[in-house]
Amino acid sequence: MNIAEESLKLHYDLHGKIEMKSRAKVDSSEALALAYTPGVAEACKAIEKDPEKSWELTRRWNTVAVVTDGTAILGLGDIGPEAGMPVMEGKCVLFKEFGDVDAIPLCIRSKDVDTIVDTIALLAGSFGGVNLEDIAAPRCFEIEKKLKEKCDIIVFHDDQHGTAVVVAAALINAIKVTGKKIGDVKIVINGAGAAGIAIGNLLIKMGFGNVVMCDINGIICEGDEGLNFGQEAISHISNLNHEHGKLADAMKGADIFIGVSRPNLVTKEMVASMNNGIVFAMANPVPEIMPEDSKAAGAAVVGSGRSDYPNQINNVLVFPGIFRGALDVRATEINDEMKEAAAYAIASLVSDEELTPEYVIPKAFDPRVKDAVAKATADAARKTGVARV
Amino acid sequence: MNIAEESLKLHYDLHGKIEMKSRAKVDSSEALALAYTPGVAEACKAIEKDPEKSWELTRRWNTVAVVTDGTAILGLGDIGPEAGMPVMEGKCVLFKEFGDVDAIPLCIRSKDVDTIVDTIALLAGSFGGVNLEDIAAPRCFEIEKKLKEKCDIIVFHDDQHGTAVVVAAALINAIKVTGKKIGDVKIVINGAGAAGIAIGNLLIKMGFGNVVMCDINGIICEGDEGLNFGQEAISHISNLNHEHGKLADAMKGADIFIGVSRPNLVTKEMVASMNNGIVFAMANPVPEIMPEDSKAAGAAVVGSGRSDYPNQINNVLVFPGIFRGALDVRATEINDEMKEAAAYAIASLVSDEELTPEYVIPKAFDPRVKDAVAKATADAARKTGVARV
Repeated sequence: MNIAEESLKLHYDLHGKIEMKSRAKVDSSEALALAYTPGVAEACKAIEKDPEKSWELTRRWNTVAVVTDGTAILGLGDIGPEAGMPVMEGKCVLFKEFGDVDAIPLCIRSKDVDTIVDTIALLAGSFGGVNLEDIAAPRCFEIEKKLKEKCDIIVFHDDQHGTAVVVAAALINAIKVTGKKIGDVKIVINGAGAAGIAIGNLLIKMGFGNVVMCDINGIICEGDEGLNFGQEAISHISNLNHEHGKLADAMKGADIFIGVSRPNLVTKEMVASMNNGIVFAMANPVPEIMPEDSKAAGAAVVGSGRSDYPNQINNVLVFPGIFRGALDVRATEINDEMKEAAAYAIASLVSDEELTPEYVIPKAFDPRVKDAVAKATADAARKTGVARV
Repeated sequence: MNIAEESLKLHYDLHGKIEMKSRAKVDSSEALALAYTPGVAEACKAIEKDPEKSWELTRRWNTVAVVTDGTAILGLGDIGPEAGMPVMEGKCVLFKEFGDVDAIPLCIRSKDVDTIVDTIALLAGSFGGVNLEDIAAPRCFEIEKKLKEKCDIIVFHDDQHGTAVVVAAALINAIKVTGKKIGDVKIVINGAGAAGIAIGNLLIKMGFGNVVMCDINGIICEGDEGLNFGQEAISHISNLNHEHGKLADAMKGADIFIGVSRPNLVTKEMVASMNNGIVFAMANPVPEIMPEDSKAAGAAVVGSGRSDYPNQINNVLVFPGIFRGALDVRATEINDEMKEAAAYAIASLVSDEELTPEYVIPKAFDPRVKDAVAKATADAARKTGVARV
């Protein structure tokens, strides 16, 4: 039986990957009177008097909504809100198992930006945060922006920012192991969707160097026509030398390639044309170029999204810990400083002694990751004034 | 320490009365590949092909949203959505512990009927049902009606229908023990809000007899001015003799008094004026008249909402089982026939041998209740054609 068949069978057998669990006893009249009526009225009145008490007297402090419209589920595209639920439930499992976060999956039957924003914003009193998931670009940028304006709780689009943080973490160490210098590298990002643009923005913000974004038409340059909201914004701060051309042109002499696009778009020749290249080819399950081919073409460091090769670059290193830390301080947002801190925290778990081209990022199951990321995130939240406690 | 203090302390200690629990293992790369990417894509594709598969491949089949706008929380009134959450969480605990139902609390930051309806309807693909909770009348009637039109899943306002079913169950047996006859009794209901009107409608539908609704101004009669949506509708099928007057007038010679109003509105004299009266005074925690006073005034059967007196008339006998049964057959609605079947199922658990004026309804913790109610509900759903499986 292959993974697809086995997974489908597992889903039928489990009949749902998450469930609710009660933390309160209601096995006697006395217990019922405390957890429910009439005793519960006290907790209600305390929150009525001071709504901030909802963080202490309900599960809000630890609860995150995992929200999709079903338009960009994995690599499957727009398959509808219900069909996105298996992924949302899986995400909720990871939130709990890797971050001790209680996550609730919600799929929304709309593709309209304002409808989606309003629906989530109206529910914001129920949660400590919202994790947007698998929402197609460019709509996801607008939804995130508007939602942040409307909400007093964390709004995080993991496909964008989780990916950006984990890529930044791997790059910090990959640059170190190759002797390259942060600030002095040329980074080519192929795929100008949600993930690609977020990676570009964070790397620029963190001062890695000159980022050149590419999409299916080749290099994106300031002034190009037909750019969407996110692409237009990044065009002003990327591709500083105003290059034009195809992906192959961008990669010539580049230090770093980051792929968040499609299988098999990168050839050995393109990798060989790089400057002692760092190649993170993360299309899933088949990357832009297979790790062994990158190595054969002379890449200095190779990473992918796959667990069966070294340097798996996986969001699961990020979102459980970054939410854990943000929830712990009741953050009002997850800002760039928190993301940057999370990236450095992940990178720091690989010591200088351990650091090799085959080991630039901790394993997905490294038990130290959650706490390190949570602490760094919480500290950065406090430092930047977005922590409530 | 009293219940109020002890309950508040419990709420601080628990830091939330519910949490998420994972049903899937993700403790290895292999497990992760099955529960999450890449394996999960199979389940997604199966639902894309046939959205009905979401009932088998996700937790939807067992998941209910418990939704409030915070406007009628317990007897506290409009205390705001966040302040309603302790009650919603408590309800979710009861759903799980008494019905094996996974319930998710959602509070909505709006008091607008259409906004509330749209918000819930947009999320309907995530759930098997919606339990409306503590939403003020008359808005709750409109929300329920519109939501039912928009949704293909169960919509149930427990404050209305759960209360109506449990009162009907207690009445079936109370009538029997007093030798009164169904169809031949006069029933006075005091309190013409969500619960009172739903009780009236169900009792009329079940053919109990002539229902006379009263509110703070006295008896409600067809043609009265200032009636709301729900009151106007029931005025045409209740108070068949077009009585006018105060509550005391209505109660003279009546067989049954049902109170869902306020403490201490009923005197011993009023009970004494009834015809061998059945008195269910359910205002909480202080009833319209205390059970010992009703007894002293000659009531034949006395019930209340309190656990420290005989005949506790408590919704917890209803909603876990009725949702369990409805979810088990993937019902598209909970109709009157299902409610009636649930009422008779509850009543039947008190055998003729056990039946006394002090025991007309099973105890809240009777372990037989859930299955009996679930089975009766599911059977009635199939019989009336609202079961999907």
